[in-house]
Amino acid sequence: MAGHKIDGTAIAKSIRERIHAQIKEAQKLNPRYKPCLKIVQIGERPDSSTYVRMKLKAAEEAGILCELVHLPSSITESELLLQIQNLNNDHSVHGILVQLPVPNHISEHTVTSAVAEEKDVDGFGTMNIGELAKRSGKPLFVPCTPKGVMVLLKESGVDLRGKNAVVLGRSDIVGSPVSYLLKNADATVTVCHSHTQNLSDFVRRADVVVAAIGKPGFVKGEWLKEGAVVIDVGTNYIPDTSKKSGQRLVGDVDFDSAIEVASQITPVPGGVGPMTVAMLLQNVVDATTAYFDKQKARHVVPLPLKQLSPVPSDIAISRCQHPKLITQAAGETGIAAHELVPFGRVSN
Amino acid sequence: MAGHKIDGTAIAKSIRERIHAQIKEAQKLNPRYKPCLKIVQIGERPDSSTYVRMKLKAAEEAGILCELVHLPSSITESELLLQIQNLNNDHSVHGILVQLPVPNHISEHTVTSAVAEEKDVDGFGTMNIGELAKRSGKPLFVPCTPKGVMVLLKESGVDLRGKNAVVLGRSDIVGSPVSYLLKNADATVTVCHSHTQNLSDFVRRADVVVAAIGKPGFVKGEWLKEGAVVIDVGTNYIPDTSKKSGQRLVGDVDFDSAIEVASQITPVPGGVGPMTVAMLLQNVVDATTAYFDKQKARHVVPLPLKQLSPVPSDIAISRCQHPKLITQAAGETGIAAHELVPFGRVSN
Repeated sequence: MAGHKIDGTAIAKSIRERIHAQIKEAQKLNPRYKPCLKIVQIGERPDSSTYVRMKLKAAEEAGILCELVHLPSSITESELLLQIQNLNNDHSVHGILVQLPVPNHISEHTVTSAVAEEKDVDGFGTMNIGELAKRSGKPLFVPCTPKGVMVLLKESGVDLRGKNAVVLGRSDIVGSPVSYLLKNADATVTVCHSHTQNLSDFVRRADVVVAAIGKPGFVKGEWLKEGAVVIDVGTNYIPDTSKKSGQRLVGDVDFDSAIEVASQITPVPGGVGPMTVAMLLQNVVDATTAYFDKQKARHVVPLPLKQLSPVPSDIAISRCQHPKLITQAAGETGIAAHELVPFGRVSN
Repeated sequence: MAGHKIDGTAIAKSIRERIHAQIKEAQKLNPRYKPCLKIVQIGERPDSSTYVRMKLKAAEEAGILCELVHLPSSITESELLLQIQNLNNDHSVHGILVQLPVPNHISEHTVTSAVAEEKDVDGFGTMNIGELAKRSGKPLFVPCTPKGVMVLLKESGVDLRGKNAVVLGRSDIVGSPVSYLLKNADATVTVCHSHTQNLSDFVRRADVVVAAIGKPGFVKGEWLKEGAVVIDVGTNYIPDTSKKSGQRLVGDVDFDSAIEVASQITPVPGGVGPMTVAMLLQNVVDATTAYFDKQKARHVVPLPLKQLSPVPSDIAISRCQHPKLITQAAGETGIAAHELVPFGRVSN
């Protein structure tokens, strides 16, 4: 009996419609609510250009301002960092995405870490990954593809608690963050990779398989446990003379044999791919909402006051306080860094 | 045939002696090289006091200045954060350790995140965990117990590449960071926890077992694969009338049955425990060395200069530059934050 095909396109479409409605609703209450995403693309890789075009189109349809900052591949790392710094400090920009991969002379690690934590809608910055990797952590943004995988599992009614989940691949972009999310959802998680021995044995015992290794049709149906749930993150182009482009998109799973054994499976295309874009839009909306919430919030933490008896003089009271730094007081009252010009000490 | 007992006490002792010699050597070259650790303890938990005493003693023996900042359990979170802030800004302090657990009215997450990244010798801050959780990450400090586990495996000659490693426990302090380190060492890693079903089946297939669940004698010898390597991180006190204290320290593994099956195994006490303290001292020395290296380094990144022909006037050249912020220039030339009093804009 063939398993159920999880329709990522349909799920993503309904999420994008919800996002569109959410933006309209927020704008009724606050006309200044204008989610804005900047995509930084360095160079002219055709695959990157395709992904960027898809993101621009989806953002526009959802009512998100989305602009491409297209830089030449000759740009130096310090020039690129200055551009990111300017976007960090531009309060009309709520989300910043650096389209990966970047050219070889630029460090991906340095560049993704340079995006301000509260605008890091790709979720690849060290702070966001650190919060994700902690059990008690509170990431501001979860990376889009891993987040999409979790939403697909949830929408498909999969209860992860105590399930045996096997992740194929340990990349920083998919494999590793997916494994942290599955672990936090109480699944027992095994991460397999290029050095794993007897990989098919691990797959055979899995209730949930997430494949993200970039090898076309690698996972065979006969490896799967009867009734397993399979999420295929692979995006591999293979030659196909019947197509106008001469190539065809396939996943990491051999779909035809896998659907005979799996209870549920995502196709490629039409599975995880559309979810990634929908999750990006969601992260931009969350970033925008957080920005306006923070502006309104006044999290002023009063300095502790130790009452004495008899009550000392005013001057004695003021002198036993260690005054707050102006930068801290500004932060607590919602004044942004770019709105503050300090004259004097800013650290203790 | 009984397996080999891994002698953590002896390995830790030789590491501590090496650290002592390393400090003496550095002081010959630079008399100002005086590694200094501050331990912040809140309240009077007897177990915390025991751990703190052990750390103070080991630090003193190695030639590290180590002071206890003992605070009452009535302290508010904001007062505690101010104390940490002061230690962050005290350039004579190289390492800061907040003894966990903290009282319930204080957020462990907030407090561990408040320690400056370059002084976070416990390695629990979000930046350090984030770098650890990334495949390409460069943590400044690896948490002491997980780091100790990896050194024990290395000293015992275990080649982790392609091995099937099973971690029992997913805490932020041991289980999760150990799993990231094992994954980066090319092992296939499974993290089991309280929701795992048929846990003994996972243990049975493991080449390497790391137990960190806090259940005395939980892992039985008959669960193990013949020849497995077992690292026992458990520190459980069970009643024992034959002891003066009325209690005895045992691990998470039933040692007597496990050593019959395992090829190598750590005892409790005398296994991971002494390594944790040695790794803390190592982190303090690394923090101190990094501090002095940073003082010496001058990582000045010149602004890019686009040469034009004919050469423009000096004023035209200077005007086409976007000048560096004084805070950035100060950081690049090795001026610390507490040495700088800016008058004017500090962000773009």
